[in-house]
Amino acid sequence: MSTDTLHLVQGQHSFAEEEGFALECGRVLRPVTIRYAMYGEPNAAGDNVVLVCHALSGTAEVASWWPELFDDERLFGNDRYCVIGSNILGSCYGSTGPSAVDPDSGQPYGANFPLVTVSDIVRAQRQLLDFLGIDRVKLVIGGSIGGMQALQWVIDYPQFVEHCVAIGAAPLGSMGLALNHLQRHVIRLDPKWQNGDYPPHEVPAQGLALAREIAMCSYKSAELFATRFGRNPNRNGEDPWTHPDGRFDVAGYLDYQGEKFVQRFDANSYLAISKTMDSFDPVRSHGSAQAAYGRIRAHVTLVGISSDWLFPAADVRALGEQFTAAGVQCEYHEIASSHGHDAFLAEPEKLATILAAHL
Amino acid sequence: MSTDTLHLVQGQHSFAEEEGFALECGRVLRPVTIRYAMYGEPNAAGDNVVLVCHALSGTAEVASWWPELFDDERLFGNDRYCVIGSNILGSCYGSTGPSAVDPDSGQPYGANFPLVTVSDIVRAQRQLLDFLGIDRVKLVIGGSIGGMQALQWVIDYPQFVEHCVAIGAAPLGSMGLALNHLQRHVIRLDPKWQNGDYPPHEVPAQGLALAREIAMCSYKSAELFATRFGRNPNRNGEDPWTHPDGRFDVAGYLDYQGEKFVQRFDANSYLAISKTMDSFDPVRSHGSAQAAYGRIRAHVTLVGISSDWLFPAADVRALGEQFTAAGVQCEYHEIASSHGHDAFLAEPEKLATILAAHL
Repeated sequence: MSTDTLHLVQGQHSFAEEEGFALECGRVLRPVTIRYAMYGEPNAAGDNVVLVCHALSGTAEVASWWPELFDDERLFGNDRYCVIGSNILGSCYGSTGPSAVDPDSGQPYGANFPLVTVSDIVRAQRQLLDFLGIDRVKLVIGGSIGGMQALQWVIDYPQFVEHCVAIGAAPLGSMGLALNHLQRHVIRLDPKWQNGDYPPHEVPAQGLALAREIAMCSYKSAELFATRFGRNPNRNGEDPWTHPDGRFDVAGYLDYQGEKFVQRFDANSYLAISKTMDSFDPVRSHGSAQAAYGRIRAHVTLVGISSDWLFPAADVRALGEQFTAAGVQCEYHEIASSHGHDAFLAEPEKLATILAAHL
Repeated sequence: MSTDTLHLVQGQHSFAEEEGFALECGRVLRPVTIRYAMYGEPNAAGDNVVLVCHALSGTAEVASWWPELFDDERLFGNDRYCVIGSNILGSCYGSTGPSAVDPDSGQPYGANFPLVTVSDIVRAQRQLLDFLGIDRVKLVIGGSIGGMQALQWVIDYPQFVEHCVAIGAAPLGSMGLALNHLQRHVIRLDPKWQNGDYPPHEVPAQGLALAREIAMCSYKSAELFATRFGRNPNRNGEDPWTHPDGRFDVAGYLDYQGEKFVQRFDANSYLAISKTMDSFDPVRSHGSAQAAYGRIRAHVTLVGISSDWLFPAADVRALGEQFTAAGVQCEYHEIASSHGHDAFLAEPEKLATILAAHL
């Protein structure tokens, strides 16, 4: 299939209307709605389903944000696969998140949205796949928090998945936890945040933009910034040397990225998913690496990115060593790139080469 | 001399009361006041003066923030040297900065404080040394923006300085410019900032604290954070796994650092000095590396820190190569440390060994 001709089904699946969906934190969501997109159809043999898990600000519409994988004949660019994207809990793209109405209060959850774990997200995805009649996944793949989901899948549902590819993903290190914490702080500092009860026409845009800008620094690399922006003045002609408000090129770029982001994302969703990312820690959940990773039956491919500052390649490699020690069939690849964490989106051809070996 | 017995003169020197002090940006400060501290006395031969330049949040009182250098018999721990510290323009520790009254408006400058360059700072320091009767400096030394000052000294006053030691200093790279920009943004986002016209009892403490927290991430290293904090919960017993407000240990540490900082620093000074740091670029000022660095007559020691993320060791090493190419007598040392940029304060014994060779 190609993006022009693919058979796309999009929808929202709601469940747990009455019994509720118990989260790991002890709270209950009632109901749960999951937005999904399905490109192609499951075959009769049930061996062609690929589940693509998205990153923090992604959507169920995989072909929109990872189009190169659909243009590649070796990957989803043939009519063999059924590719499913599922918007995560906490997001603002069609699944249950902070803008949903809390049945207890009759008001949107806002900042009172419960802490959702990656395991909760995956459990909801499993219910979605049940609804779609899918009982076997050939490949689960994702980058960043999408990679966390892919890893959680093969831990929580060892019989369900044949192969897992996680890119730039591992339990977040201390520096990553720090940067996420500061991003949440910045959103809450915006006077328009109002403890999460902001109206739709008066959102904490400045705080969210700044959070995105901090995140962008951690998604890219110093090397990339140096090459692209150097110490050049902002390309609109500002003068950072004599005027206190004059910006350098990199500052103009970041501000532009921040402005773009607030047009498409919600501050409370950002806060929620940022906490979800922090909480991913299978070893802690299971008590030991052996207990967590010894469950895995899938073949796992871990991909580190040489310049990734948020999820350093060394952390991903170390995770691979834990997997191997726990008896997992695991291989580690490293993408040599100056694009930093974002390389999983910015270097699709390098990723495609790794993926092609498993499809 | 030791910190117990040293002969300390502290004071403020004011000048340019009438003619004004013209800044590189074209604006004029009238008058200029420089807070200084002098440990020991200049000798008759005029060959024992050490000028120590401080970093962003430092003070003239060198022995307070670099005490280890005064405890070391090889360095300032003998009675040979006269160590001078000079608080920089823009600071809130006794020199002319944003809280000074603008003679044109009769009000404090606030956010209207002009952009001061490192060259302006050094020129004011030169006037201070004239006032103190000093016409020759054996050693100028500093880390971070203090290192920028040390480098600017030997470029702007080639005959005045015998030796220069700059630690973790180079023109700020694109990532550093980005992080400074975001810190300034965060301060301005605080509703209490009020365009810089905040009253002393109602300061933008949250914004300044957050700016400091972002900076702390760039002053330390991922390696250090991993060792110190890992993925531990905040040591006061918060639970980051189930409670949306629960913090990890690194977050508690950063928040504490932010709270401490706002007790001792001013937001407008932070904004001003952050811009000063951005603007340091001798090659741009002089048109070429040869024109800038070919002026240097001092012996220069550049010190990079292996884990420095704000001023990467590779950038410091590259600066050393430019120096050598311009004919400067220059040597490069690298401190192997996990402390990041802060190693110039956190690893005094490693620094002392390098310094001892030049004193």
